[in-house]
Amino acid sequence: MEIAQVILALAVIFILAKVSSRIFAKLGVPGLIGEIILGILIVSIPVGDYSLFEWIASEFDPSPGSSVTVHEIIEVFSELGVIFLLFTVGLETKVTDLTSVGKAALLVAVMGVIVPFIVGYLFVTVTGGNMYTSMFMGAAMVATSVGITARVIKDMKLMDAKESRIIIGAAVIDDILGMIVLAIVSGMARTGKVDVVNILVVSLTAIVFVLAVLFVAGKVIPIIYDKIQAQRAEKILKDPNYIPPGFNMFVVAIATCLAFAYVADIAGLAMIIGAFLAGMLFAEHAWEWKLEEKFESISALFVSFFFVYVGMNVDIQVFIDDPALLGTALILIVLACLTKFVGCGLGAKIAEPHMEMSSVSIIGTGMMPRGEVGIIVALLGLGMEILSNDMYGIIVLMCIATTIIAPPILSVLFKKKYNSPYAIRDSDRL
Amino acid sequence: MEIAQVILALAVIFILAKVSSRIFAKLGVPGLIGEIILGILIVSIPVGDYSLFEWIASEFDPSPGSSVTVHEIIEVFSELGVIFLLFTVGLETKVTDLTSVGKAALLVAVMGVIVPFIVGYLFVTVTGGNMYTSMFMGAAMVATSVGITARVIKDMKLMDAKESRIIIGAAVIDDILGMIVLAIVSGMARTGKVDVVNILVVSLTAIVFVLAVLFVAGKVIPIIYDKIQAQRAEKILKDPNYIPPGFNMFVVAIATCLAFAYVADIAGLAMIIGAFLAGMLFAEHAWEWKLEEKFESISALFVSFFFVYVGMNVDIQVFIDDPALLGTALILIVLACLTKFVGCGLGAKIAEPHMEMSSVSIIGTGMMPRGEVGIIVALLGLGMEILSNDMYGIIVLMCIATTIIAPPILSVLFKKKYNSPYAIRDSDRL
Repeated sequence: MEIAQVILALAVIFILAKVSSRIFAKLGVPGLIGEIILGILIVSIPVGDYSLFEWIASEFDPSPGSSVTVHEIIEVFSELGVIFLLFTVGLETKVTDLTSVGKAALLVAVMGVIVPFIVGYLFVTVTGGNMYTSMFMGAAMVATSVGITARVIKDMKLMDAKESRIIIGAAVIDDILGMIVLAIVSGMARTGKVDVVNILVVSLTAIVFVLAVLFVAGKVIPIIYDKIQAQRAEKILKDPNYIPPGFNMFVVAIATCLAFAYVADIAGLAMIIGAFLAGMLFAEHAWEWKLEEKFESISALFVSFFFVYVGMNVDIQVFIDDPALLGTALILIVLACLTKFVGCGLGAKIAEPHMEMSSVSIIGTGMMPRGEVGIIVALLGLGMEILSNDMYGIIVLMCIATTIIAPPILSVLFKKKYNSPYAIRDSDRL
Repeated sequence: MEIAQVILALAVIFILAKVSSRIFAKLGVPGLIGEIILGILIVSIPVGDYSLFEWIASEFDPSPGSSVTVHEIIEVFSELGVIFLLFTVGLETKVTDLTSVGKAALLVAVMGVIVPFIVGYLFVTVTGGNMYTSMFMGAAMVATSVGITARVIKDMKLMDAKESRIIIGAAVIDDILGMIVLAIVSGMARTGKVDVVNILVVSLTAIVFVLAVLFVAGKVIPIIYDKIQAQRAEKILKDPNYIPPGFNMFVVAIATCLAFAYVADIAGLAMIIGAFLAGMLFAEHAWEWKLEEKFESISALFVSFFFVYVGMNVDIQVFIDDPALLGTALILIVLACLTKFVGCGLGAKIAEPHMEMSSVSIIGTGMMPRGEVGIIVALLGLGMEILSNDMYGIIVLMCIATTIIAPPILSVLFKKKYNSPYAIRDSDRL
């Protein structure tokens, strides 16, 4: 391994990713989409006998095999990126918030999981896919990307609108439900057995893991935290010069995050589920320990590699060989939008039968974007060889499309209802 | 590559490194020494037919070659760690500070470079080493680790003492001089030619590179910065709602850091020199852009891997095979302490002939620790195959020893002179 070659490749890809992200953000599109498209381009653009990526990864002197190490390093960075990303999602998911969301948010979330899952599952089954592929498609359809909708709401300064509160509340529940669905689906796919016992074992593992973390985060940690605080206060009362031992909570958080990712893996679940749950453990005190800020710094380094890697795995040749796939992708995109719209809308209507249609539409649209969460599911399925290149490609397209389509519609609907004077102003990164 | 295997290895080594660091810090020894010793131990402790590292790096299921990928990943993390570490050292080296240090600091720095270099060079030449090895030993002897002494001074609340100001000022100049020495030494070793032309070319490249950065940092950047600020102020005057485009300076800094590291490499210098100079470019506004804070977050992740990797490269077998090496190491340690003490002391005496011996001693002792900087030089020499395993081992020992010895002596000398009531209190990390 030539270390300068690795550093050059990391530098070039990092810089290109950030520039792409910025260009897309300027156009009002989430920056991550720019990074995914960059990834698609660098492996697709041929320069002589090699791809652009192979040139970059070999100090511009490609030969067979010269870019293998860099590819592996980028895969590791990508995996760490998605682990840290899910940890930060977990950081934003407080157990106390979960218990305080209303009936409407709960029903919106549950219906927004059930309807897309069933439709995604049936879509693949009808087109001839096997059960595992169907389940992964269902799981990818279930995903909701909280970040993108929240950004729109914040930019319009409508955080206090009733619809906003329901959407944000539902998104939190949705994260948990989505993780449970993914845990069950990936766990079953991994063991490869489809008997009732296996379904029960995997489901139980996933649910017990999640419930255990919810219990620890909600009950155990507050008790320990309060006890330590009380002890410190007592010691300071006795000796005003006493300085409590300063644990570096950021280091503890990174260690927990990596350890949980691995434990999830050996428990038969996806590593990102472990990372997400680890994040939840720190959610209540994340602000006090500046964890969000600090993880943002390491995410700024790693997460771009994840989205570039997502793009690098999209094989555009499958669309060239079979243009009909684009039609399939289009159908999936329509289904993805409709199922969230109908599912979440229905949930809202059941919870509050007298809710106006304008509010129902806002909620349905706000829950549409799949963003990074759907893409994570897709890449996981590809890595497990459950999703074909075709399927992976159309799921990534679906996630990109729902993420681009929803924000402008949402802002129009919000403007119509609230006459908000604020235009959408997408910041430079997610 | 099994990604779970890599994540597990990173998690285990990260956790062990932080625990070691903490244990050593509790004992009043800089944490990085704990991390180096951990690195030595994991490759030296045999568990059955394999080393502890091979067990960790193979999900506890070692077989020949099973830990190769993890080793490569750790090497990349280590290299990124040292690049970011040198960038942060650069961040603390403001050009404006350079021009304002006094005559005493300047002479202390210059004499503290010349004396140790000559003695280090002669030491290897006398014991039969070749010219390149001698030069690398000289460069390793030159290094001063600002951080460790500064920590002692801060803990004793003596930042305003005259000796403290001279030490900190000298350390800044020392960083620049040390980088120039290293650039010349490594550049010459790389080309492998020892004619006058080559020495001139390499020295010129190094000096031009450093001067160019000093010029850009000191003259060009302030002009651009002021111009941009003036333009923004004007636009805001015209339109109070104008929001200036928010560049993410952290991303710009990472990109510059990696790019400069690579440019230094192709210019025939070490990558860390590029990283250090890149840091200097951002030094003036590092506080405004919160760069120190943010780089501290990514350093917390990467830098431990560097020190562990330093330890992993120490082959304790050489000391077992030839115990006389320990004697050589001891002589080198004594020389390392004496040369800085005499060189820097002499510099101080020349600048201020009436300076009390108690002050001269403080300055001489304060400049002793080689810390991470000497170790970086050693690892670079090992990687270039200029330093043998023996030489690498004794330099690491020397760096560890000077780093451990200096702080307690310094604190005793300071206490004697100033009757400072503060005991040394080493924080949990450097």
